[in-house]
This record gives sequence, C-alpha cells and structure tokens, in this order.
Amino acid sequence: MTSVITLLSDYGLADGYVGACHGVIIGISPRSRIIDVCHLVPAGDVRRAATILAQTMPHLPPGVHIAAVDPGAGSRRAVAIEAGDHVFLGPDNGVLSWAVHAAGGPKTARELANEEFFRKPVSPTFRGRDVFAPVAAHLAAGRATADLGPRIPPDELVLLPPPTSVVRGNAVEGEVLSVDGRGNTQLSINAGDLAVLGVRPGSTLAIWLGRRQVSVPFRETSATMPPGELVAFTDSAGLVALAVNAGSASQRLGLPPGAHVRLSLST
Amino acid sequence: MTSVITLLSDYGLADGYVGACHGVIIGISPRSRIIDVCHLVPAGDVRRAATILAQTMPHLPPGVHIAAVDPGAGSRRAVAIEAGDHVFLGPDNGVLSWAVHAAGGPKTARELANEEFFRKPVSPTFRGRDVFAPVAAHLAAGRATADLGPRIPPDELVLLPPPTSVVRGNAVEGEVLSVDGRGNTQLSINAGDLAVLGVRPGSTLAIWLGRRQVSVPFRETSATMPPGELVAFTDSAGLVALAVNAGSASQRLGLPPGAHVRLSLST
Amino acid sequence: MTSVITLLSDYGLADGYVGACHGVIIGISPRSRIIDVCHLVPAGDVRRAATILAQTMPHLPPGVHIAAVDPGAGSRRAVAIEAGDHVFLGPDNGVLSWAVHAAGGPKTARELANEEFFRKPVSPTFRGRDVFAPVAAHLAAGRATADLGPRIPPDELVLLPPPTSVVRGNAVEGEVLSVDGRGNTQLSINAGDLAVLGVRPGSTLAIWLGRRQVSVPFRETSATMPPGELVAFTDSAGLVALAVNAGSASQRLGLPPGAHVRLSLST
Repeated sequence: MTSVITLLSDYGLADGYVGACHGVIIGISPRSRIIDVCHLVPAGDVRRAATILAQTMPHLPPGVHIAAVDPGAGSRRAVAIEAGDHVFLGPDNGVLSWAVHAAGGPKTARELANEEFFRKPVSPTFRGRDVFAPVAAHLAAGRATADLGPRIPPDELVLLPPPTSVVRGNAVEGEVLSVDGRGNTQLSINAGDLAVLGVRPGSTLAIWLGRRQVSVPFRETSATMPPGELVAFTDSAGLVALAVNAGSASQRLGLPPGAHVRLSLST
Repeated sequence: MTSVITLLSDYGLADGYVGACHGVIIGISPRSRIIDVCHLVPAGDVRRAATILAQTMPHLPPGVHIAAVDPGAGSRRAVAIEAGDHVFLGPDNGVLSWAVHAAGGPKTARELANEEFFRKPVSPTFRGRDVFAPVAAHLAAGRATADLGPRIPPDELVLLPPPTSVVRGNAVEGEVLSVDGRGNTQLSINAGDLAVLGVRPGSTLAIWLGRRQVSVPFRETSATMPPGELVAFTDSAGLVALAVNAGSASQRLGLPPGAHVRLSLST
Repeated sequence: MTSVITLLSDYGLADGYVGACHGVIIGISPRSRIIDVCHLVPAGDVRRAATILAQTMPHLPPGVHIAAVDPGAGSRRAVAIEAGDHVFLGPDNGVLSWAVHAAGGPKTARELANEEFFRKPVSPTFRGRDVFAPVAAHLAAGRATADLGPRIPPDELVLLPPPTSVVRGNAVEGEVLSVDGRGNTQLSINAGDLAVLGVRPGSTLAIWLGRRQVSVPFRETSATMPPGELVAFTDSAGLVALAVNAGSASQRLGLPPGAHVRLSLST
C-alpha cells in the first residue's frame, strides 16, 4: 500500500526546513509518498493556510495531512483529527478546522502527547520536524492513532469562524476569503448562490465593496476579458472570485481577507 | 515499471494548485514518479514555457509531460502529442511544439475529448488539475493514447515560430530566446555556428544589439570574469548566452525575448 | 532498499534546472528517493549552503547528498567524501566541509574523474546535471565509490573556516552564522555555552554588536514577544538566534554573516 503524507507550512523555500521534514519522514517510513501542498503561506497566517488546506484536500488521496502554521510557535497543543479517510495533524488553533469540516467533520481527535513518536529533543520552534513529521510517518508506517495520546472531545477543538455567505433578498452577502498568488480575490460566496439570483456567464454583477459599488462582468474565465479589465468568475474551488486579466484584482481593489462584499445581478 | 509524469506550469508556488495536481495523479496512479520541471513560468508566457520544456526534455526519462500554460485559460483545445518515447499534454497553443520538434516531431496527435479520463466537473480555469493531471495518470497507469479522443492531423497543430538563427557572411544573426532566473540572456544562436566563424574561448565577440555594438569576451564560463563584467559563453543548452558575473545581463542589456542580435568575431 | 539522494543548490526555481537534475537521477536510478533540501541558496554563497547542509543533514536518512554551489562554476575539482553513513558530492570549495565534520569527519575522499559516470558532453556551467546528479544516481544504484576516481588525502580537502565561538570570562563571543528566509539571525554560539553563563529562558542578555550594546530578552520562542520586539532564543539547530516577532531581525540589526557578536547575562 502506498501511504500519502501531505505538507502545508509557512516555512518558506529559502532554507532547509522543508527538506528536514522530508528527511525525517523518509527515515521512518521510506515508502510514503510526500506531497508538498504549499510552503509559502505567509508567516503565521492561519486563515490562509486553512483556506488552502480545505480547498486542496478534496483532490488529495486518503492520507495524513500536516498543517504546520502556528503564530504561537508551539504554544497550542498539537492534535490529530480523523475525518473521512484522512488524518489531519497540526496545532489546535483552527488551521485544520475548515478542512476537517469539508471532510465530513471530526470522527475522533487526540492530543499528540506520546513522545515515543517524537524526534527528540523537540525544538519549541520547529514542531513540523520534531512532532508532526515523525508522527505522520509512524501513522503512515502503520501505527494506530489510538497510540498518539489522550482523546479530545471534538467539540473542544478550536474552530476558525466559518466564512459568512448569506442570501438576502436579491443579493448575496459575504466576505473576501483569500487572495491567491496572482492576486485573484476569492469570495466566500458559492457560485450556486449566484445562480439562484439568476446570474449567468454573460451577466453583469453589481458589487458593493464597503461603500463603493462597481459593475463587473461575470464570465466563465478571466481570459476572455481585455487585459486590465476586472471580471468575476467561478474559480476552481467553486467560489466566486474577482480577477483582473493580466493583472491583480487584489491590487486593484485593495480588499483584505475578511472585507465585506455584497453581490447582485445588475439590472 | 516506473512511470514518469512531469509538470510545467505557471501556477506559482504560493497556493495549493501544484499540490492538487500531485494529489490527483497519485490518487489515480500511486506508483508514478512526478518531476516538477518548473511552476514559476510567468503567467501565460507560452514562449518561456516552450523554451524550458524543450531544453529540459532531453534530460527527462521517457514519460508523460504536462505543460499547463495557457493565456486563454482553457479556450484552446487540449491535446496529447506522441513524439519519441514521450507523450506531451497541453493546450494546443504551441507550448509543446519546440519540445515535440526536439523529440523528433509528432508521431500522432489526439484531442483530449474522452471525459472518462477527466476529473469532473472540469473547472474552466484549472485544466491542469481536472484534465491534464488525470489524463497523464491514466496513461501512466496503462491506458492507451488511442482512448483519449479523436486524432488530429499533426500538421494542424499550432506551432510557435521557431527562433531564428542564420549565418550571413562572417556573422550570425538571431534573437534573444529566453532570460533565466539569474538574468542570463540566452540567444537563439547555436554555439556550433559561432565555432564555424572561428570563435573560440578566449576570442572577443562583436555583438550588435539593435543599433548598439558591444565587445564581449567569449569564455567557457562567466565565472572567470571579474564581477560586473559582461561575458558570452556556451550555456548548458548548447546555445550562446550573455551573462554578467555576479550580476544580471538582462538588466544590463535590457533585451527582451525576441530582440534581434548579430554576432561576429571581433578583429 | 530505498536509496536517498538529496539536492542543495543555488539553481533557483524559476527555470528547468532542478527538474533536469531530477530527470537525470530517475533515468539512471528509478527507485531513488530525491529530497530537495533547498535550491534558493543565493548564487555562489558557499557559506550559506554549507550552513544549510550541516544543519539539515542530521535529519536526512543515510544517502548521497549533493551540494552544487560553486562561484567558480566548475573551476574546482568535483569530489565525493564519505562520512558517517553518508556520501557527500560537490565542488572542493569547502561547501561540504561543515556537514562532513558534523557527520564525523571524512573517512575517504575521491575526485570525480571517471567520466563513465558523467552525462556527456559535460556543460562547464552545469555540473549538477552532468556530473553530480548522474554520479549520485550510479552510487544509489549500487556502484562503489572506489570506481569514481583517484583517492584524495582527506587533509588536502578545502575547508571553510569553522565559525568561531569562545567563552571569555562571563561572556561568549562569536559571529553571525546565517540569516534565514524570515530574517532570523543565527549566531555561531551554542545554546549550551549560554547555559554555562547562567542564561535561562526569562533572562535578559547584553549583546554587543560591534560598538553597539542592546538588551534582549532570552525566551523559549519569539512567539511570546509583542510584535516588533527583538528576542533571543535557542533555534532548531541548537544555536542562539535573534528574531523579531512578526518582523526581521536581519533588517533591524543590519548584521551580515561573519559580523562579530558578544553575549553575556545582563545584570
């Protein structure tokens, strides 16, 4: 059996940190497949990491998924959460919560307390290498989650507040969920909610960003627009996103994650 | 048998996009080896992607090679082209053409039309994940290219115009082909053509860049030059390149890809 | 048996160079596991590469480790050094020396002279692809180091001067060893030496940087400090490091690698 371990972190690629995690895993479980989901999460950005994990997870094989993003650098307890066919490892700061929810919710949760699985001494600043990587490798090599440590009632796990999205009359209200590497601005609004309002590719959207209102064409992709034009489309996660063809919607709009938005069909 | 799948894209490394492609492949074909050729192609830069693929391909094992760079974001048909021991997958926008030519030219070509191989629903903005990755994995797992879709006459495939390089009298004319991550400026001129003109390591070149003429030493490597000095050498693809030791030839010269150049032996 | 090959270079990730090295290795030794330690070493920065290799190596499985960082681009002889359970491949410019020392010192050394193992023609600007990668793959596939070329007396190998760290009275003197991707400034001073001086988490350090003196809290991690505050801690390599929570100690202090520092317990 091929066992899969995936890694998500804010370690960056300019150091040997990711390589050390790979080394620890392969030293314990030489046959595991490792997938690097992303290591360029901005330092300590739990919300961005949670978004990437939740949106990538549906495309990952069953396996053990590490999310090592913790602004408290080890101050939060380390946990393992089983959900669907997956085991998620990370700090109990909410970084796993959206992916766990997307995978069907937590079946069991445990605190990573059994030091037998750790690489010692554990560096307080590098639990990815000394806790999450070796625990993942031992799980991939066949150890049971029951051996990891004491059970945690799932309802005691820290949750990130879920992104809001509400249909009110002929409009949908939501927020900026994430900004990707190209500056595409992803909203918390499901494309299905727009369809309910009668929005179709070819429609024009009225979008309120705070007190500003802009008219934005809704298209299948941003590529059909002239360079520099703002466009809305359904992105690869099934959410409404704003893009500027050959440019950055994030720079254009200046909307940070969490900013309130309201969309309706322009008439 | 180990099956090899290689990935080239403009997805960047700041998101989960590359990880999702790996996940899809491993989910279908757990034993495939995946090689990331490059994911930092500038967005939609077909010419740059074509250059990287053509110059890396001679060093890749036989396998399935994906080039997911498409400024039209899915507007071009998706194709599979067999050439040499390789199968190339990508949009029919020319991105594959230089590698296919370097591999001996197209033996067969097919449109990727059989949705049985796709990950559904196919996102119009992420064919790498939903079309190219699963098709590559199914091929790696043993499915035949004949099952992918209808044949395309190879002479109907979109080609990038090949880079020009012509010996005229005692000079070679060509163009800037590519600029690499260090600012080294690679020309379309084969080192063999320079040898015909009598240029040897130790010679001095007269280079016309538009109306400017510069004298540039031709050396085995740029490392033997004082820092800051411009030098010409035969690069690792066998082409003439301009570099600045401990600097950027691209910044120094300001020559974009496609710019005309003319080289001769300085006398 | 799984054979492990690790790669460290200054090739960057914006080109196909790393992919070509992977391709060459997999073409020769299809079952080898490849770990990318880091490819974003600043161009030609031997000291930075040596630091990353020495600090990552303890976490890598036994294997063949390539460090392709050479400001002379091939002017130094290429060597293989056996140390501990590892074989190190690189230019004989000192880049391997700290890792070899950390692995117990050189048992044998050989010049890579046997061209049978090379990919030909060898590009003078890309020995990673044409020398180190194929040699590593042949070793991983079972060839003996004795076949690589003539022995070199280990005491003829080029060494980087080891970073200094000396306890003088009630202070430790050392230097800036490295700056990581987040701007954390790692000193050559072992955390054990600070403990000898009575420094404990919660202590305050007096740090001399040239003629400046600053008072810096010593903590378990930087995360417990308010954003923007300078802090000293024991980093994941067991060395004393300076960080700014949610900021860059490197920018704050302006201390380049090699700069002299002196630490004592503030009273």
